[in-house]
Amino acid sequence: MTTAPKSGHAPTGELTVRTERRTQLLDVTAAVAKLVQDAAVHSGVCYLYVPHTTAGIIVNESADPDVAADIEAALARLVPEDAAAYRHAEGNSDSHIKTALVGTSATIFIAEGKLELGRWQGIFFCEFDGPRTRCLRVKIVPD
Amino acid sequence: MTTAPKSGHAPTGELTVRTERRTQLLDVTAAVAKLVQDAAVHSGVCYLYVPHTTAGIIVNESADPDVAADIEAALARLVPEDAAAYRHAEGNSDSHIKTALVGTSATIFIAEGKLELGRWQGIFFCEFDGPRTRCLRVKIVPD
Amino acid sequence: MTTAPKSGHAPTGELTVRTERRTQLLDVTAAVAKLVQDAAVHSGVCYLYVPHTTAGIIVNESADPDVAADIEAALARLVPEDAAAYRHAEGNSDSHIKTALVGTSATIFIAEGKLELGRWQGIFFCEFDGPRTRCLRVKIVPD
Repeated sequence: MTTAPKSGHAPTGELTVRTERRTQLLDVTAAVAKLVQDAAVHSGVCYLYVPHTTAGIIVNESADPDVAADIEAALARLVPEDAAAYRHAEGNSDSHIKTALVGTSATIFIAEGKLELGRWQGIFFCEFDGPRTRCLRVKIVPD
Repeated sequence: MTTAPKSGHAPTGELTVRTERRTQLLDVTAAVAKLVQDAAVHSGVCYLYVPHTTAGIIVNESADPDVAADIEAALARLVPEDAAAYRHAEGNSDSHIKTALVGTSATIFIAEGKLELGRWQGIFFCEFDGPRTRCLRVKIVPD
Repeated sequence: MTTAPKSGHAPTGELTVRTERRTQLLDVTAAVAKLVQDAAVHSGVCYLYVPHTTAGIIVNESADPDVAADIEAALARLVPEDAAAYRHAEGNSDSHIKTALVGTSATIFIAEGKLELGRWQGIFFCEFDGPRTRCLRVKIVPD
């Protein structure tokens, strides 16, 4: 994962995320936390935005990787890849539907210069149509 | 669709959205983009908020309308309209449940005076209990 | 429910939420509205953040409690508690999955010193692995 800070009134960065499977919840907590630390903002809001239509973002448990595996499996059960009724011809309707369910943006507070995640929380980039090289936009706005 | 700018420190507007079916994902990208352009904010955050309990908002592919149709159909399959177990007596429990799943707010960055959507992304107002005249609130906060 | 204001450039508070069942959608609208009123911010954004991995936040109808009951029941049907395939050993995979579906953050506008909810909207803390004592973080940013 690489980061590319961009100019602007509020520090904005982009993380490049390389995914390895068709569906993958990738823990990007450390990379986002580093962007926040580098921004040297004491108190504020960190916005995460996924500019894709077959990938999303969630905050959930990162301590046990089985949790992410269970979320992936549950989404696959709820939204099958090959439902006969899909109209979109690219074979990734399930990827778009999963993205609609989990969402493409998240908001996390910054306190005392750090991302204020809960004790067990981590940030997961949700790949639903990989493997691909993806982008995660991060904006850091001081209070 | 009509827009009504309101006064305030940050430009805030309301889009009036007229839906035509009980369930309809309506592409409102152009109207939101125009509000952002009119606000003349170079860099910032655009907040979208749906003040209803049976309608939501998502960001997903707008190039092929079959994607929105597949999302509508998948939600209808996951949350049937006439489940026997529903307690709410108005016959629109499915509409409330779908709203809980997709959410009522979204956040998109503004860069170089424009809504910074991904290449294939559009903004969809999600009607789940129409047809109705609905409202979409938009707040534009400069960095 | 008790509130504990914290210092900072933008008023930030924490609500302590005590839940009574394993799954419970708890109406926290009045407590959040009071924090906003106490902050004396005329126009701005109210951010809600749940720092847990088995609890989320939604905005939906609060007038008829049957709506929350139907949302709880629909999530239980979509994500069974005891699916044989879960890998996470703590018996609360369903709680993590429901959290991923509804999300852990919400954004509501503030106008004329008040939380600008729609006519039928209320804010629900979504307990998915209770009963527990939980935390809801609230940040109020003036425009």
